[in-house]
Amino acid sequence: MVFTLEAVAQHSSSKSCWIIIQNEVYDVTEFLSSHPGGANIILKYAGKDATEAYEPIHPPSAIADNTPPVKYLGSLDAGSAHAISQAKKEKKKTQDEIRVELAQKLKPPLSRVLNTLEMEKIATKILSHKAWAFFASAADDRVTHEENIRAFSRFFFNPRVLRPVSTCDPSTSILGFRSTIPVFVCATGKVKQGHPEGELNITRGCGRTGIIQMVSSSASLTYAEIVEGRISESQPLFFQLYVLKGERAPDRVREAERLGYKAIFLTVDTPVRGNRELDLRAPFVLADQEREAERLARKANPDAPMDPEIDYEKGIGEPVARLVGADDDMSWEKTIPWLRSITKLPIILKGIQCVEDAVLAAEAGVDGILISNHGGRQLEYSMPSIEVLYRLRKEQPDVFSRLEVYMDGGVRRGTDVLKALCLGAKAVGMGRPFLYAQSAYGDAGVERLVRILETEIILGMRLLGATKVDELVPEMVERVDWQPLVAKL
Amino acid sequence: MVFTLEAVAQHSSSKSCWIIIQNEVYDVTEFLSSHPGGANIILKYAGKDATEAYEPIHPPSAIADNTPPVKYLGSLDAGSAHAISQAKKEKKKTQDEIRVELAQKLKPPLSRVLNTLEMEKIATKILSHKAWAFFASAADDRVTHEENIRAFSRFFFNPRVLRPVSTCDPSTSILGFRSTIPVFVCATGKVKQGHPEGELNITRGCGRTGIIQMVSSSASLTYAEIVEGRISESQPLFFQLYVLKGERAPDRVREAERLGYKAIFLTVDTPVRGNRELDLRAPFVLADQEREAERLARKANPDAPMDPEIDYEKGIGEPVARLVGADDDMSWEKTIPWLRSITKLPIILKGIQCVEDAVLAAEAGVDGILISNHGGRQLEYSMPSIEVLYRLRKEQPDVFSRLEVYMDGGVRRGTDVLKALCLGAKAVGMGRPFLYAQSAYGDAGVERLVRILETEIILGMRLLGATKVDELVPEMVERVDWQPLVAKL
Amino acid sequence: MVFTLEAVAQHSSSKSCWIIIQNEVYDVTEFLSSHPGGANIILKYAGKDATEAYEPIHPPSAIADNTPPVKYLGSLDAGSAHAISQAKKEKKKTQDEIRVELAQKLKPPLSRVLNTLEMEKIATKILSHKAWAFFASAADDRVTHEENIRAFSRFFFNPRVLRPVSTCDPSTSILGFRSTIPVFVCATGKVKQGHPEGELNITRGCGRTGIIQMVSSSASLTYAEIVEGRISESQPLFFQLYVLKGERAPDRVREAERLGYKAIFLTVDTPVRGNRELDLRAPFVLADQEREAERLARKANPDAPMDPEIDYEKGIGEPVARLVGADDDMSWEKTIPWLRSITKLPIILKGIQCVEDAVLAAEAGVDGILISNHGGRQLEYSMPSIEVLYRLRKEQPDVFSRLEVYMDGGVRRGTDVLKALCLGAKAVGMGRPFLYAQSAYGDAGVERLVRILETEIILGMRLLGATKVDELVPEMVERVDWQPLVAKL
Amino acid sequence: MVFTLEAVAQHSSSKSCWIIIQNEVYDVTEFLSSHPGGANIILKYAGKDATEAYEPIHPPSAIADNTPPVKYLGSLDAGSAHAISQAKKEKKKTQDEIRVELAQKLKPPLSRVLNTLEMEKIATKILSHKAWAFFASAADDRVTHEENIRAFSRFFFNPRVLRPVSTCDPSTSILGFRSTIPVFVCATGKVKQGHPEGELNITRGCGRTGIIQMVSSSASLTYAEIVEGRISESQPLFFQLYVLKGERAPDRVREAERLGYKAIFLTVDTPVRGNRELDLRAPFVLADQEREAERLARKANPDAPMDPEIDYEKGIGEPVARLVGADDDMSWEKTIPWLRSITKLPIILKGIQCVEDAVLAAEAGVDGILISNHGGRQLEYSMPSIEVLYRLRKEQPDVFSRLEVYMDGGVRRGTDVLKALCLGAKAVGMGRPFLYAQSAYGDAGVERLVRILETEIILGMRLLGATKVDELVPEMVERVDWQPLVAKL
Repeated sequence: MVFTLEAVAQHSSSKSCWIIIQNEVYDVTEFLSSHPGGANIILKYAGKDATEAYEPIHPPSAIADNTPPVKYLGSLDAGSAHAISQAKKEKKKTQDEIRVELAQKLKPPLSRVLNTLEMEKIATKILSHKAWAFFASAADDRVTHEENIRAFSRFFFNPRVLRPVSTCDPSTSILGFRSTIPVFVCATGKVKQGHPEGELNITRGCGRTGIIQMVSSSASLTYAEIVEGRISESQPLFFQLYVLKGERAPDRVREAERLGYKAIFLTVDTPVRGNRELDLRAPFVLADQEREAERLARKANPDAPMDPEIDYEKGIGEPVARLVGADDDMSWEKTIPWLRSITKLPIILKGIQCVEDAVLAAEAGVDGILISNHGGRQLEYSMPSIEVLYRLRKEQPDVFSRLEVYMDGGVRRGTDVLKALCLGAKAVGMGRPFLYAQSAYGDAGVERLVRILETEIILGMRLLGATKVDELVPEMVERVDWQPLVAKL
Repeated sequence: MVFTLEAVAQHSSSKSCWIIIQNEVYDVTEFLSSHPGGANIILKYAGKDATEAYEPIHPPSAIADNTPPVKYLGSLDAGSAHAISQAKKEKKKTQDEIRVELAQKLKPPLSRVLNTLEMEKIATKILSHKAWAFFASAADDRVTHEENIRAFSRFFFNPRVLRPVSTCDPSTSILGFRSTIPVFVCATGKVKQGHPEGELNITRGCGRTGIIQMVSSSASLTYAEIVEGRISESQPLFFQLYVLKGERAPDRVREAERLGYKAIFLTVDTPVRGNRELDLRAPFVLADQEREAERLARKANPDAPMDPEIDYEKGIGEPVARLVGADDDMSWEKTIPWLRSITKLPIILKGIQCVEDAVLAAEAGVDGILISNHGGRQLEYSMPSIEVLYRLRKEQPDVFSRLEVYMDGGVRRGTDVLKALCLGAKAVGMGRPFLYAQSAYGDAGVERLVRILETEIILGMRLLGATKVDELVPEMVERVDWQPLVAKL
Repeated sequence: MVFTLEAVAQHSSSKSCWIIIQNEVYDVTEFLSSHPGGANIILKYAGKDATEAYEPIHPPSAIADNTPPVKYLGSLDAGSAHAISQAKKEKKKTQDEIRVELAQKLKPPLSRVLNTLEMEKIATKILSHKAWAFFASAADDRVTHEENIRAFSRFFFNPRVLRPVSTCDPSTSILGFRSTIPVFVCATGKVKQGHPEGELNITRGCGRTGIIQMVSSSASLTYAEIVEGRISESQPLFFQLYVLKGERAPDRVREAERLGYKAIFLTVDTPVRGNRELDLRAPFVLADQEREAERLARKANPDAPMDPEIDYEKGIGEPVARLVGADDDMSWEKTIPWLRSITKLPIILKGIQCVEDAVLAAEAGVDGILISNHGGRQLEYSMPSIEVLYRLRKEQPDVFSRLEVYMDGGVRRGTDVLKALCLGAKAVGMGRPFLYAQSAYGDAGVERLVRILETEIILGMRLLGATKVDELVPEMVERVDWQPLVAKL
Repeated sequence: MVFTLEAVAQHSSSKSCWIIIQNEVYDVTEFLSSHPGGANIILKYAGKDATEAYEPIHPPSAIADNTPPVKYLGSLDAGSAHAISQAKKEKKKTQDEIRVELAQKLKPPLSRVLNTLEMEKIATKILSHKAWAFFASAADDRVTHEENIRAFSRFFFNPRVLRPVSTCDPSTSILGFRSTIPVFVCATGKVKQGHPEGELNITRGCGRTGIIQMVSSSASLTYAEIVEGRISESQPLFFQLYVLKGERAPDRVREAERLGYKAIFLTVDTPVRGNRELDLRAPFVLADQEREAERLARKANPDAPMDPEIDYEKGIGEPVARLVGADDDMSWEKTIPWLRSITKLPIILKGIQCVEDAVLAAEAGVDGILISNHGGRQLEYSMPSIEVLYRLRKEQPDVFSRLEVYMDGGVRRGTDVLKALCLGAKAVGMGRPFLYAQSAYGDAGVERLVRILETEIILGMRLLGATKVDELVPEMVERVDWQPLVAKL
């Protein structure tokens, strides 16, 4: 069937909600309540074209895959499609778009980027405010986020000298898969918000450098597209799993296993989404930018008309949006056996935040744990990850021999990686640094980032007197009792 | 009897001191020595209209209630009343009034306010300097005030995962009264200085959200007016008691009990008022603002006349004003039995600041203690409240089973509330945040503040792995040995 | 005999060095090597009038008292005296003099000053750079000076409630002499640099408020003048003693005893003067100010002549000037018995900096010790005074019963005084705050400062639950393990 | 043979690489792979005149000494030599050169410099950016570099009073050689980058003041030239040794011994060069300065031609350059016996960074260890040197009696030196402060620096109550548990 814009516009409420994606018309009325991002964000586009909002955060095929409850209705007529295309062309640039365009022009060549902090600095400039706010956001006042980073600065080295270090091998194995350095990419959602190629930038960069990518349940490409984007068939991928209520989780797990993902990282720290205020504040910031620009324009030309499109008060009414559909009744008794029953893949718990739960995980017989507080995005004042790892080493060192232990949160330098390994981590995960690298420079940025880390890790190992990762031992690090200076962006 | 302004003006000394309030004439000569705010502040208005100074900090009926020793003399004649009203209209706006008017216009909509810090930021802009100085003031250099807040940042969580948290109930009971969240509003004086509706904003906001308000002895409305302002008859209120010398304290307690207040929070940390320099400095700041404005005006127009009304040297001669009439001879032996003898209401000691006194309170058989240093307004370098609670938990955990323990001071986030509850507090009090909320947005601001806290508390409980307040246990918090970053206004 | 300027000018070298003070001519050639401030500073004025440099730091009669080796030669002739007076009048004001004059005009009334920090802030503005540099100077990078202050912030109170505090007596006795508050004024040199009345401002202020002044060996008035300046005959004064080599120390001690001074505070931390860089740098700063003013003038008027009087390179060649004549061979074995043998006054050691020496002092049988690092002016990284007191209380509490213990260094608030008293100090000394108070407001400033301290001390005692100084006990303070915020100027 | 510029220009690749130094032509093709600074830096000048890059960092004779594999080919013809000289004269000044010239003019006279921090401040202004970046550079974020300095601030003194200190001797012996103060100059490379006289400034300054210079393997003068620059034949010099692969190390050691160097300081912390980002970033910074200057010029004059010589993207492709030829297979078993076998000089290990290795060194029978993390230039987060010394004193005090212990890293004040000596160091090394002193003021700067240190050390000893270095004992220092303020540049 063929529709006009006017016809679609009739269905603009929660009673009957149609939207247009890429000139195709969908009825999403029944889908509203199960949209992982909540109903409100869809209702903003009810009866209208939603392509621009949809594309950066969903795989192209996601909406089709959702039927039912999404109903495909038909196409727009040619005149309507043309009108949308025309409107897009004529749309006045926002202040934020103008800023981003200029920043992209002034971006330094990749060869100048010496470390992850510089990468983040550059990405911060070229990202749209909305994407930046999503990537940089963390719980409440971002204390745990910052403390993840600061915590590393309290661990100093006891470097050993006069050891032969002409050969140095920083590679390790993670769940039996080889990784050229003891680092993997942690799952992060909405990667396309930073760069049109999205997750594929990371897939390619990892493939070329020999490290492993963990793909998010909320990837902005389909799980299959990412598998297809690999450099070679032997490139391993891991799968991060959010358990949603109902029948979707088993489907996801089976799909991941079928596509060849090598492990399931079950997220256990997100029964509900954290309070991320940069995110919540982003619409206000953007509205204020437009408002201020208009005020200045009016000052220069008092006759300029008010722009009726600026919705000054637009924002988010609810301080915290719920993660719709998340299973917030997972438990040690129920969830692990259930997951074991539907997959043969290794199971790793992502989001362990204290020693007690690390012990429970070992008792539950999972294959690994990822000590993580979700990059400080979930519970504010969750203990910094490296501190949890340190406590685990001191209080329950036997856990390290019962399963593989990883950590993420605050890793920015090769020395951070080495500290975690000295304390017993098999490998460390990094999320935001890869988001920033791919946002600023696509897959080349990802590759550069791995090369920088590799250089820093090898250098650090040799200066520590270690030639293999298993020569990194607890005696090589010491937690100090003062607060050292912390490198700043 | 009827008086003219001229007649009143004859009585402008401490020998014979008349003042006008709302066109009524009072002889306050004998009252001077017992005015809780001191004689000097009244003498500033001796022989003059004092309405503008009186209204923001007293219940309208307070002056009438004070007879004797206040003597009602009669009314102003119509001409004098008109002259006062005219003078008020013609009064030039002060720099501070101009600033406040502009700030009120630029105030963001309430829906944009995401947390208590933002609420304070906004209130700071729209409050008169005098009101702000009174609310924000704390002892000496405000160290204890700031350390109350900073102390919370040293407590981190050990969050537990894989616990079913789909249902989560943050409610508790305080002295047997249900509260939707483990937070109550602490008593603060002179609330009307921030908003014309004063305490009623808080009464209504608490009623609508189901939390309990503690009303100050120094409320700017009568205790009865506040009772009448409740949303329903079942809404509980607590009464904060300053014991004054002489016969007034028993009267107050009996009045409170008769009006239906549910508990007496006896303030024990204020035998004398603290040294609050923001308050003391406010007149100088305001005078300097006028002076500077005049200097600039004169620069532009050298012929402008000097404004004879600016009293450049006005200020407070005494570094610290005494709290007139406070009973500074209260004692464990005398005061508790006396209070028990005049009321059947539960008695809570407000202002316990060390472990030793918490133990004495338990031995004295009171119903509860509020660990508090008066928001840092009394003794500078009093130990931060959460640190006192932590010491009590470590050194005398049995106290928690002998009476209810509350704390206030520095609570700004839901996570702060949870930390206190993990350490054994039954509920926490908050004062300034509610002052700021009602100043900026009236009762809607109060309601918003409770909703924000409720959202933060529920979120925090679920992410901690707790579904009821009694699942919050000491093992979930750890006091760390470094100084984390602290969120700033 | 009568001299002309030309005649005096012939004697301008270390071979023959004449100077003019108040139109009198002296031959100081033989005095050069024993001048406590060093020879260089005199040689700057060799053959010239030295009155302006001499007056702010010496008692008027000092030069006369020094004969021999100073030789009085006679007077200037009238023409020469007139020429000096004329030159003084015509002298162009320096940038620093211009700044000070303006600051004096803008100085707030004394009634506005609420605390010692404000007093210091004001004094810093109205002092000449040279005087400020001398008063504010401390060793090296002023770390110990600042840490003296910061150290107090690590001591918090455990305030006790429900104690009768309607009467509160902050008085104490020091070596048997009554003091209205447990504070005395520490000796500081060159007081006249800050105010023409110099030490007398302090004498009068102390007399009126009932506290005790310790007079410096290097006072800028004679010891007798200060005694004569007392409010009453019963006002006690203490004498600070620098032991100089040779016969002068016994003379000084005997003079002090004869004049009625009540105790000898023997300085033991100054065998040599500390490295005070603000002082050393002051001439460069002043020269640069003139240079910059000239540069700006020349910019406006390129024809302006260079001022030949600015000695751009003037400065101090030696990084550290020695305290000429100090006895740097004092010892426990020799010095205490010697001092006992020449005076019956109580002996107090000023400058004890560690527990071990406090014990030695008790064994040596002195009457008291003043724990002090000379306000951070001697050895950089000397332990902060309050920390030494704290260690003494913990490690050798018996010392407190064997002699009186005082401390100075970093005391700025009444709460600081109370912390020291809780830890066992009998009283605390304050130096710079009194220097600043008298510089800015003369004797009224000194009186105000004492009143502020008295108010703060009484308030603090009552809020702590103490009514007499001996109720201040160690249990009332706790040294905390974090670094609290510190009030800033 | 004689060559033209054109002829040389034919050999501009790694296949055939000729360069011109001082009008002499060399074929360095075979030398490329063994150049300690890497091949890339040479290839930049392939076929061209390299004099300007060569001179500041090499001894004049270095290139000649390298044959083979460097081949001397002959001279330039007169025309070519003239063309080079002409081009040099006509070369437009860079922004950095302009800045440096102005800074040199404004440099204060040496007599104004009061301490090492001021010396560094001045040098920072007058150094070329490239030289500054090389001197100031440290690993990664310069945390260890800064923490070396900050660590000293945690050590406070317990000064002793009433000890005779009129005579005070700060001299010590180092490996049997007398040093007027317990300080020696640590080896640093490329000294000529800061001043044309380079290492000789240090040699002369040390000779005049009686302290010992350690000469770097990478000195910018020949080892012989430095020996010849001594003040007298008895002036001792130490030799720092980088062991390079192959036969060169034995040659160097024998040459040093033959020339009269008195000890070998074998660097053990540099199997590979650290990640020094200031260094790596310097070319970008300089290019950006030119670019910005051109942008401003173009703004003023839009017709100005683009300068084709600015290579905007120039930089360093590899994040970390390897130290070509370093022996990264040194070991306790192999290296110490080997070195003993080729020299009779005392052997000291430079770069010990933990207690365990200090013990190994004692067991290996070396004559001394220098606790050092290479000024923070090697492994980031290596423990600060004074902290390692402190741990050694606490955990293995016997090591101090088995060999001489020195430390370097962060020493800026006489008090720093005294802290290290109290903890057991025989002497301390200083590197950067001498680099800065000679850069700013040549040999006079070096002499001034020693005099300042001497004054500070003597003053500190006397105020501590010590008259000889062996009276400096561990009881005189205490490591405190807070973070004091740190003096800033």
